[in-house]
Amino acid sequence: MAQAQKITPRAKDFNEWYNDVIMQAELADYSPVRGCMVIRPLGYRIWELMQRALDDMLKATGHQNAYFPLFIPQSFLAKEAEHVEGFAKEVAIVTHTRLKATGKTGTGAVMPDPASALEEPLVIRPTSETIIYAMFAKWIQSYRDLPLLLNQWCNVVRWELRTRLFLRTTEFLWQEGHTAHADEADAEREARLILSIYQTFVEEWLAMPVITGVKTDSERFAGALRTYAIEAMMQDRKALQAGTSHNLGQNFARAFEVQYQTASGGLEHVWSTSWGVSTRLIGGLIMTHSDDFGLVCPPRLAPIQVAIVPIWKTDEERGQVLGVGEWVERELKAAGLRVILDARDTMKPGAKYFEWEARGVPLRFELGPRDVAAGQVMAARRTGGKAPQPLVGLAAAAALALDEIQAALFAAAWERREANSIRGVTKEKFIEFMQDQGGFAYGGFCGGGECEAAIKDMTGATIRVLPDAEFRSPEAPKTCMWCGRPSIAEAMWAQAY
Amino acid sequence: MAQAQKITPRAKDFNEWYNDVIMQAELADYSPVRGCMVIRPLGYRIWELMQRALDDMLKATGHQNAYFPLFIPQSFLAKEAEHVEGFAKEVAIVTHTRLKATGKTGTGAVMPDPASALEEPLVIRPTSETIIYAMFAKWIQSYRDLPLLLNQWCNVVRWELRTRLFLRTTEFLWQEGHTAHADEADAEREARLILSIYQTFVEEWLAMPVITGVKTDSERFAGALRTYAIEAMMQDRKALQAGTSHNLGQNFARAFEVQYQTASGGLEHVWSTSWGVSTRLIGGLIMTHSDDFGLVCPPRLAPIQVAIVPIWKTDEERGQVLGVGEWVERELKAAGLRVILDARDTMKPGAKYFEWEARGVPLRFELGPRDVAAGQVMAARRTGGKAPQPLVGLAAAAALALDEIQAALFAAAWERREANSIRGVTKEKFIEFMQDQGGFAYGGFCGGGECEAAIKDMTGATIRVLPDAEFRSPEAPKTCMWCGRPSIAEAMWAQAY
Repeated sequence: MAQAQKITPRAKDFNEWYNDVIMQAELADYSPVRGCMVIRPLGYRIWELMQRALDDMLKATGHQNAYFPLFIPQSFLAKEAEHVEGFAKEVAIVTHTRLKATGKTGTGAVMPDPASALEEPLVIRPTSETIIYAMFAKWIQSYRDLPLLLNQWCNVVRWELRTRLFLRTTEFLWQEGHTAHADEADAEREARLILSIYQTFVEEWLAMPVITGVKTDSERFAGALRTYAIEAMMQDRKALQAGTSHNLGQNFARAFEVQYQTASGGLEHVWSTSWGVSTRLIGGLIMTHSDDFGLVCPPRLAPIQVAIVPIWKTDEERGQVLGVGEWVERELKAAGLRVILDARDTMKPGAKYFEWEARGVPLRFELGPRDVAAGQVMAARRTGGKAPQPLVGLAAAAALALDEIQAALFAAAWERREANSIRGVTKEKFIEFMQDQGGFAYGGFCGGGECEAAIKDMTGATIRVLPDAEFRSPEAPKTCMWCGRPSIAEAMWAQAY
Repeated sequence: MAQAQKITPRAKDFNEWYNDVIMQAELADYSPVRGCMVIRPLGYRIWELMQRALDDMLKATGHQNAYFPLFIPQSFLAKEAEHVEGFAKEVAIVTHTRLKATGKTGTGAVMPDPASALEEPLVIRPTSETIIYAMFAKWIQSYRDLPLLLNQWCNVVRWELRTRLFLRTTEFLWQEGHTAHADEADAEREARLILSIYQTFVEEWLAMPVITGVKTDSERFAGALRTYAIEAMMQDRKALQAGTSHNLGQNFARAFEVQYQTASGGLEHVWSTSWGVSTRLIGGLIMTHSDDFGLVCPPRLAPIQVAIVPIWKTDEERGQVLGVGEWVERELKAAGLRVILDARDTMKPGAKYFEWEARGVPLRFELGPRDVAAGQVMAARRTGGKAPQPLVGLAAAAALALDEIQAALFAAAWERREANSIRGVTKEKFIEFMQDQGGFAYGGFCGGGECEAAIKDMTGATIRVLPDAEFRSPEAPKTCMWCGRPSIAEAMWAQAY
């Protein structure tokens, strides 16, 4: 109880609630380094489970992992004009390679040794296009070398002014895919394939429904031809960009002279893509499902899927319930479930319930002497509901319950999103919606950057994507909901993280 | 044939051979950043397989993964006096956070913006003790919080002057474990447990036999009480330090004030350990097993364990052998083997053989029309030997062959090491051995740093470890093999990477 009360209710302050959930579940912590977080074991385990799932999907579609240097010579970053403009103001720059004592005796204080200044400063990768294309230029000679489908799991650094745990940190972990293709159609196919992989991964594993589509120029990746994205709605009705996939055209190939000999003997620049998802997804998972008692973790990504809490008063009862508890633990483990038997005797059962709730464990089995006598456990779902469950067939029942919880979380998120979406907005309706409530608003868009700017200015909302066909309204809007000129595409607006 | 000839023979130049094997197998490549390498897909896949195996062993012994910041405030590094001395001369230092145009119109040239200078420069982690102990101080309050057993997979940077692919690079990948304990005995037990896990992992997966033992002060980790290590012999008879485990005593706990309340209410500093293995292990794997035809990869870590090479002349034959080849591929995959069917029609079978040999594939199945008729493949082992193998029961036979190859590689490395080791050396014998041949030399050691320095000066050899009991000579040496004073321990000397 004490622990649950430490979490600020969502209704009172969503941002405080978000931080409280993270701290209470011990997912992450602030570090002494500005804007950098520590990912604690529970949070990192969720990341590992995400990595495993997505990595399997990427490998199954022919992508291979590799590793490129953390450092990028500053001149490389400047080779693609839009790219350097996009990142110049937020990069960590290495200039020296030795520390020396400041000379104040006994203080132990140190400073960069001026004699160790680098001839060319190195930028910590904010993204790796530039260093990777320098290698592509070396590796790609002929059409036989294409397509080249690489991916990298690594850390990147962007010197952000305002940071938030998981959502925006100076250093973060991600995967960045980089591929080279013989023609435009193949690059476009790849960018689209990855978007669909991201959608499947996020919906099936994070239970987080997304809208797919293309970004307008104002939100396009610095150096890309087109940026596709998946966008999810959080419980505060704001949008979270959960992954992006860029068709880079020949922009980077030209900047780094990545050319290949065609089958007919000609020389052409490759067409390329890049794409990524990051530890930001953990923030999205938290804000999609969790409640005022703490983390709610979709079962497929839950580090612990079932917590068994034995209940006893006497030593005799203790031996009895622990014996059965160990049997349950073995059965569930044998069925491939991630399970813990919480045998701590320094803590009462109720306190354990609150702890596992705060940590997002989807299923809790309470096991007292009466349950043992009845050949059952009391099965409590993190999302609500509690009922006895026979020991016979328990592992299969647990697996089924986890599947049901996973599906229910997705359905609830989907319904919440649809309940907070409006379509065919007029300007007046749009302003009212964004100011009173917020959510996803669909309407006509003239394609003009002035309308985007004016809308952002007045409501804080931006075009998250021009949605793909399956997410568009049955009837295409005819006019821009803001300026009334002809609409070139339906847009989806929202306030966003 | 052409490809095999690109590899310099070991006998001619071991270093050139090593680089040739790496480049030919496409394990890694040089990058445009000084001292930093690119790990290409084949090399990275070996690293992933290593990670999976070791990570499973660490998790099974109660360790949890976490992630700490890349950046360390320079003042943190200076808190432990020996530690900063050990690393001050080889750290990358971040001093600025923005790039700006140099102002030369049209050049696109950039420089660090002086207005973005950091108040306190940040060091890129050369190892993470300091940043982790700052968090330990926050997390550890009571004996109930102990032991705390964390591990981190990440990149680190040490500004090395002389670098070599995998063995010594400015940036490298590793795991670093950091644990805190209630008393000295528990920390010592942990440091020893990890050493034994490293030994098992390296011997069973890399097929690389090691000597375990403790380092002398001159090779001790900066800030540690005691450093344990595993040392392997490469084919040029030099030693490679393949992993280290440090008992840090209370040194870092004192520097960062990591204290806990004992069960009896007192306040004590924790006792701690740290330990790591890195991508250097890939270099060790290469130098232990490979030959003049290229990489030899132990089957358990081989990204591709079996390459099926179909042989055909006519289209009809092609259809036939590919049909059977696909069946073989499915059978082997179903048995959990990593297999490729090399159906490329731009390359002749002989060229494919050389390519898969250079890339270290342990087992090659040649499959021509006559083999199909006979219901067999020709099974060629990377380590030598070729014989027909019936299609019936092929997957089980392949798995058995891979196990045999794994065991034979370990046995060969073991025998080579023992054949190149001498025991009970005298000073004269030692000098002769180190100058003529090189290898592992065991002898008495007085404990004096002057002897170590003089020996290194004359022969280049250092004490790799004071070996653990199982590696010591039957009779303990009585005198220092160099100075003749009483021996305090048997030492194992070698020239080393």
